[in-house]
Amino acid sequence: MNYRMILNILGWVLKFEAAVMLLPLSCSLIYMEKTAICFVICILICFLFGMLLTKIKPKTKTMFSKEGFTTVALSWIVISIFGALPFVISSSIPNFVDALFETVSGFTTTGASILSDVESLPKGILFWRSFTHWIGGMGVLVFLVAILPLSGGNNMYLLKAESPGPSVSKLVPKIRSTAKILYSIYSVMTLVEIIILLFGGMDLFEAMTISFGTAGTGGFAVRNSSLADYSSFIQNTVTTFMILFGVNFSLYYLILVKKFKEAFQSEEFRTYILIIVVATLMICLNSYPLFDDLGNALKHSAFQVASIMTTTGFATDDFNRWPEFSKGILVILMMIGACAGSTGGGIKVSRLIIALKTVAKELILTAHPKSTRKITLDRRVVEHETIRSINVFIMAYAFIFVVSTLIIAIDDFNFTTNFTAVAATINNIGPGLEAVGPVENFNGFSYLSKVVLTFDMLIGRLEIFPMLMLFSPYTWKK
Amino acid sequence: MNYRMILNILGWVLKFEAAVMLLPLSCSLIYMEKTAICFVICILICFLFGMLLTKIKPKTKTMFSKEGFTTVALSWIVISIFGALPFVISSSIPNFVDALFETVSGFTTTGASILSDVESLPKGILFWRSFTHWIGGMGVLVFLVAILPLSGGNNMYLLKAESPGPSVSKLVPKIRSTAKILYSIYSVMTLVEIIILLFGGMDLFEAMTISFGTAGTGGFAVRNSSLADYSSFIQNTVTTFMILFGVNFSLYYLILVKKFKEAFQSEEFRTYILIIVVATLMICLNSYPLFDDLGNALKHSAFQVASIMTTTGFATDDFNRWPEFSKGILVILMMIGACAGSTGGGIKVSRLIIALKTVAKELILTAHPKSTRKITLDRRVVEHETIRSINVFIMAYAFIFVVSTLIIAIDDFNFTTNFTAVAATINNIGPGLEAVGPVENFNGFSYLSKVVLTFDMLIGRLEIFPMLMLFSPYTWKK
Repeated sequence: MNYRMILNILGWVLKFEAAVMLLPLSCSLIYMEKTAICFVICILICFLFGMLLTKIKPKTKTMFSKEGFTTVALSWIVISIFGALPFVISSSIPNFVDALFETVSGFTTTGASILSDVESLPKGILFWRSFTHWIGGMGVLVFLVAILPLSGGNNMYLLKAESPGPSVSKLVPKIRSTAKILYSIYSVMTLVEIIILLFGGMDLFEAMTISFGTAGTGGFAVRNSSLADYSSFIQNTVTTFMILFGVNFSLYYLILVKKFKEAFQSEEFRTYILIIVVATLMICLNSYPLFDDLGNALKHSAFQVASIMTTTGFATDDFNRWPEFSKGILVILMMIGACAGSTGGGIKVSRLIIALKTVAKELILTAHPKSTRKITLDRRVVEHETIRSINVFIMAYAFIFVVSTLIIAIDDFNFTTNFTAVAATINNIGPGLEAVGPVENFNGFSYLSKVVLTFDMLIGRLEIFPMLMLFSPYTWKK
Repeated sequence: MNYRMILNILGWVLKFEAAVMLLPLSCSLIYMEKTAICFVICILICFLFGMLLTKIKPKTKTMFSKEGFTTVALSWIVISIFGALPFVISSSIPNFVDALFETVSGFTTTGASILSDVESLPKGILFWRSFTHWIGGMGVLVFLVAILPLSGGNNMYLLKAESPGPSVSKLVPKIRSTAKILYSIYSVMTLVEIIILLFGGMDLFEAMTISFGTAGTGGFAVRNSSLADYSSFIQNTVTTFMILFGVNFSLYYLILVKKFKEAFQSEEFRTYILIIVVATLMICLNSYPLFDDLGNALKHSAFQVASIMTTTGFATDDFNRWPEFSKGILVILMMIGACAGSTGGGIKVSRLIIALKTVAKELILTAHPKSTRKITLDRRVVEHETIRSINVFIMAYAFIFVVSTLIIAIDDFNFTTNFTAVAATINNIGPGLEAVGPVENFNGFSYLSKVVLTFDMLIGRLEIFPMLMLFSPYTWKK
C-alpha cells in the first residue's frame, strides 16, 4: 500500500476544502454575519493540515486498485470531518455526531437533516450546507484529477471509485480532460438553473442554494417547508433540472459533440424517462383526490417522482399523507435511483436493466439450454465481468440494507420508519416515510443509529466497495 | 414440448389427489360429519379427470428441462384447483378465490389463512387443510417419482424443479430410490412427532394435524389461537421438530448410513443452527420485559425463531406486540428461510452463504486483482453455474417481491402490512406483521391481492423459475 501517496492526496483534499470554504465565507461577509470568523478558523485549520500532509512526498506515484479505493473512501471521510467544523464552531449544530451526520448528508448529496428549523441558521452556514451538495455531486477527486497532476497516470482508479454506475466511461482518451469536461457541463447547467430561478423571482442566495441542491441531487432546502412555498414556475423549473441532473453526463457530452442519435438511443436514458412518466401518471391518478385539481396533482406528482428517483429529496407536499400505492411507488423509485454517471444515487437504472436481462436470459436458458444469447446494453454485449460486479453490488447493497435496518430498529421506531430511513440514506435521497417523512427530520434517532445512517450515506455515494474495503483485512494485507 | 407426456403426468397427479383425499374422508367418517359426502364427490371428480388424462399416452417418454419445469408448475396449479373443491363444496369457504388461496397456502406449506374462526370448521376439512401441508412439504412429484415409472429416466428434471435449494443432490444413484428414501425419512419423523405429542396429552386428531403442519413447515393450526394454548411440553416439542424439519434431509440420510462426521460438518447446517441460537438470544433479551420470567421469554423466542426461520408460521404469542428490534430479526429470518433440501421455504441458508462469499471474494479481488481464490461450500468448489443461478434467483426474487408489494398496496394497507404480507407468502411462512399478524388473517385483502399473494406462494414453493417459465413466451416457442 502506497501510504505516502494516499496521505499526500488527502492533503490536497484538505487544501481543496479550505479553498471552497471561501465561498460561504464570502456569503457570511456579504450578510455581515459573525459566522465569518468561524469560516476563517476552519479555512486555516484545513489549510494547515493540508500543508502538513502535502509535505509528505510519495516515493512513487504508482497507484493500484486498492490505493484508489481507499484514497477515495478516506478522502470522503476526511472532507466530511473537517466540513463539519463550521457547524460545530458556529454552534449551529453543537454536537459533533449531529454535525457530521449533516455534513456527510451534504457531501453525499443525501439531504437528510437533523435540523428542525433551518431558517434560524446563519446564511453562511446554509450556503455551506447547500454547497457541500454541489461539491459532492460531481465528486471531490474528479475535481482534483481535473486540476492536479495527482498520480502517475493511474487516476482512473480514483474516478472509478468515486463515479456512480457499473462502469466509468472516459469521454475522451485523457482522464484529466474527461474530468474537466464533466465539471464544465456541471457548472454551466448549474448556472443556467440559477439564472432561470432568478428570472422566476428568487433572490440570488436562494437561487444559488436551491440550484446547488438540485445539481448535486442533494435536497437541502433553505426554508423549513422545503420547496412547498415557492411558485409553480419555480417548482416546475426544479422538477425539470432534477430530471436533467439525473441523466448520465456522457449524454450531454454526446450532444455537445453533436452525436444526437447516439445520445437519445441510450437504453438507460429511455428507461429512466419511461419510469418517470409512468410513475408520475400512476401517482397522479392515485392521489389526485388529495389535490384541488388534476393540474395541481400532476405538478406535485411529477415533482416528487423526479425528486425521489433522482435521489434529490426536495418536497412540495407531505407525501407521507399520500395513499399507500403512491408511497409504494416512491419507495421503489428510492431503490432504483438515477442513471449511472449522473449526480444521483440509488442502484441506478442501468444496473437494474442488466439485472432484469440476466433473469430473462436465465429463463431462456432453462427452456433452451443450448441458447447462446448474450446480454446487451445499447446493442453492445455486456461483459461477464460487469454482470458479476452488478450482481455482487446488489447483493452487498441488500446485506448492508438489512443489517442497518436491524441496528436502527433498536430505537423502536416502526418498521416503515426504519426501512425508509435506511432507504433514504443508502440511496442518498433524504426524506423517507413516517417519522423520517418530508416534514420530519432524523434528530429523533440515537447516536448509534445516526452513525449507522452516516455510514450508509457514504456507502451509497461511493457505491459500497470503497467503504467496505476500508474495513476488509485483505486490503491491508500484503 | 411433449404435451402428451405432461397431460399424462397431470392425470397421475389427480389420481394421487383422489387417493390422498381418502384420509380426510376417513376422518369425516370417524367424526360422523356430513362433510364425508363432499369428500366422496371430490374424490370421484379427481379420479374421473385423472382417468381421462392418463388415457393420453405419450408417444415418447423423453423429457427435457422445460417439460420438467412446466409439468411441475402445472401439477401444483392443478392439485390446488382440485384441492380447493372440498372447501367450496362443503361451504367451509364458499368463494373459490378464497378457497384457492387457502389450498395453495396449504400445499405450498405457507399457512396463511383467510379464515378467522378455524374452530367452527368440520374436522374432516381441518384434517384436509393440514394434510395438504404434509403433501406439499416433500412434494407431489417426488412422491409420484418414488412410486411410478413416470418418464424415460429423466425424472431428475421433475425433482430439480420441485425440490428447494440451489442444487438437488441424489442420495443414491437412482432417482427413484432417492425419492423413496426421502419420503421414508419424512414419514418416520412425522410419526415420531405424532407419538410424542400424544404422549404430551394431545388427542390423535390434534397430534396428527399439528404434526402435518410441523413436518411440512406449513403452519395451519386447528385452534384460533394457533399453538398459544398448549402446554410448554407440546410447544417445546413443536419447536424442536420445526428445527429438525428445516434441516437438509440429506443430512438425515448421512446419519442413517453412519457418516456422522460429514453430516455435522455441513456449513449450511452449522450456520442454520448458529442463526437460530443467536436470533433466539437476541429476541429473548430484547423482549423479556414482556414476559413473566426469562424462561418463558426464552421459550417463546425459541419457538417463534424456529417457526419463522423454518417458514412454518405457528405462533405461541402475538409477536406483533414485540419490540421493533425483535420484529426486525423475525423479518430478516423470514427472508433467510430454512436449509436447502428441507421442507422449508425462503431464500435458503446455503444460497445466502454463497451470496455472502461472492461479496467477500469481490472485496479480495479488488484489493488483489491477481487472486484466484474460489468460492467453496463444505470444502468443495461451488461451480460458476450454481453461483450464477443463485444471483439470478435472488434478483428475480427481489423483483417479484417489489412488484407484488406494489400491487397489493392498492388496497391501502400500510407499508409494514404489505411488505410482510408478501414476505410471509413468497417465503411460505404464513403470518406477517400488523394487519397480517399472527392473530389476524388475510381476508381483508381484495381478490386482486389474494390472487397476487396466491401466485407468490407458488413462486416461493417452486423457487420462482417453474412458475415464471409458464408465462415466458420462450418456453412455448420451438
